[in-house]
Amino acid sequence: MVGQMKSFFFVFIFLVLSKAVVSSARKPSKSQPKPCKNFVLYYHDIMFGVDDVQNATSAAITNPPGLGNFKFGKLVIFDDPMTIDKNFKSEPVARAQGFYFYDMKNDYNAWFAYTLVFNSTQHKGTLNIMGADLMMVKSRDLSVVGGTGDFFMTRGIVTFETDTFEGAKYFRVKMDIKLYDCY
Amino acid sequence: MVGQMKSFFFVFIFLVLSKAVVSSARKPSKSQPKPCKNFVLYYHDIMFGVDDVQNATSAAITNPPGLGNFKFGKLVIFDDPMTIDKNFKSEPVARAQGFYFYDMKNDYNAWFAYTLVFNSTQHKGTLNIMGADLMMVKSRDLSVVGGTGDFFMTRGIVTFETDTFEGAKYFRVKMDIKLYDCY
Amino acid sequence: MVGQMKSFFFVFIFLVLSKAVVSSARKPSKSQPKPCKNFVLYYHDIMFGVDDVQNATSAAITNPPGLGNFKFGKLVIFDDPMTIDKNFKSEPVARAQGFYFYDMKNDYNAWFAYTLVFNSTQHKGTLNIMGADLMMVKSRDLSVVGGTGDFFMTRGIVTFETDTFEGAKYFRVKMDIKLYDCY
Repeated sequence: MVGQMKSFFFVFIFLVLSKAVVSSARKPSKSQPKPCKNFVLYYHDIMFGVDDVQNATSAAITNPPGLGNFKFGKLVIFDDPMTIDKNFKSEPVARAQGFYFYDMKNDYNAWFAYTLVFNSTQHKGTLNIMGADLMMVKSRDLSVVGGTGDFFMTRGIVTFETDTFEGAKYFRVKMDIKLYDCY
Repeated sequence: MVGQMKSFFFVFIFLVLSKAVVSSARKPSKSQPKPCKNFVLYYHDIMFGVDDVQNATSAAITNPPGLGNFKFGKLVIFDDPMTIDKNFKSEPVARAQGFYFYDMKNDYNAWFAYTLVFNSTQHKGTLNIMGADLMMVKSRDLSVVGGTGDFFMTRGIVTFETDTFEGAKYFRVKMDIKLYDCY
Repeated sequence: MVGQMKSFFFVFIFLVLSKAVVSSARKPSKSQPKPCKNFVLYYHDIMFGVDDVQNATSAAITNPPGLGNFKFGKLVIFDDPMTIDKNFKSEPVARAQGFYFYDMKNDYNAWFAYTLVFNSTQHKGTLNIMGADLMMVKSRDLSVVGGTGDFFMTRGIVTFETDTFEGAKYFRVKMDIKLYDCY
């Protein structure tokens, strides 16, 4: 009888532990979990037409149709360098390839979809990212919706902060990349 | 011996239960699981050029190149209000920011990528969505591929149903948002 | 005592097994796991303007703005057939609906976002895909970021290999679709 009770006790404890493991795997608590990978990169966008072919890393492919005065509908394709410091002439650790467009009629606001392409000794692979860039907010979150290579199947969040804005020619965004599903 | 058999029995039962828990976490049965969050919103699109700057919430940025008669290649950027009822003048609970384009030469068909931006007392955060809008089908599914803020890392399905279509000027889509991964 | 030891032993074994199950579900080892679904399809793109309305399945909607000589900024909308063999006249098993654009100033390079729409007796549903198409690399990976219908909530990788390129008129890409989350 005592042996039976004890084995029941073991099983019960195990049931509790096991549930805890399964739950934590599926439902992290409301406080956001710690990322499994986290790094900060700077995105540099140098606009063609304002700057020349040699320097430019992006180009507008549509003209704003006139809905407001904040470039609504201007669509930009880019192949921008990503660096670990703020100097756009530093050796890039990745390329950001994709597009953004402006989408608000009474303020500057944008929307991004792009791929971070890593091809260094440290990282090989890509991160696929999309989301709203709420430019009037100091810090805003986009989604890492997938990854390949070293970032196989990952997901996470990219936090944008505008670092500098030099008219229509150049801007730099600090991108804090936090991955929560690492394989 | 009886005690041993009983404890073996407990362990066996537990093994079965535990497997069920783990399996349901990773592989819901063919019948789709219940969403962890579910809400319906209405999307209102008022086209610039047909309506004026004051009212318009979207604008075409390309002209269809002539592949068929169903606007193939017309690309529209939008910052559209999302409401809980069908009245586009109701207080929006979110903005839908993104784009769609028409992509079929022998019928109306579209493709969407956008972000639902929530900034109310009830919800703060974003949902990122993409997929085909098979307009000839009554009800069609797109993917929620990520989320931020209150919707941190979520995934799910958005079911579109065209609610009304007033020529080129205005259309309304019922969007049934079902989230299956909530954190 | 022996019975107790044995039941402890069972529980211990179970704990180990159970942990293994949970871990493998969340953190596949560095060697990529086996896909739960895997199939190869061929994507056929026939450009309007080079070919006629009758045959064309895609159309450019912007002109490259002149950043380099590799079509940087040319944006193409498509509704392309997907077949199981290399013949573009074979019965399509899905449609690929979406867009790509060229985005490099010193070589050909592209970026894709699209939906595979299945509507056959074998498969009903969609796969949503995005990522960089690094055309200079033999084989490159994009992300399956979501799915609907038979592919409810799936994720995975699509590996592109250019199969043939006939000038500006036609190209064919082998797409190896590997799904790792099946529900």
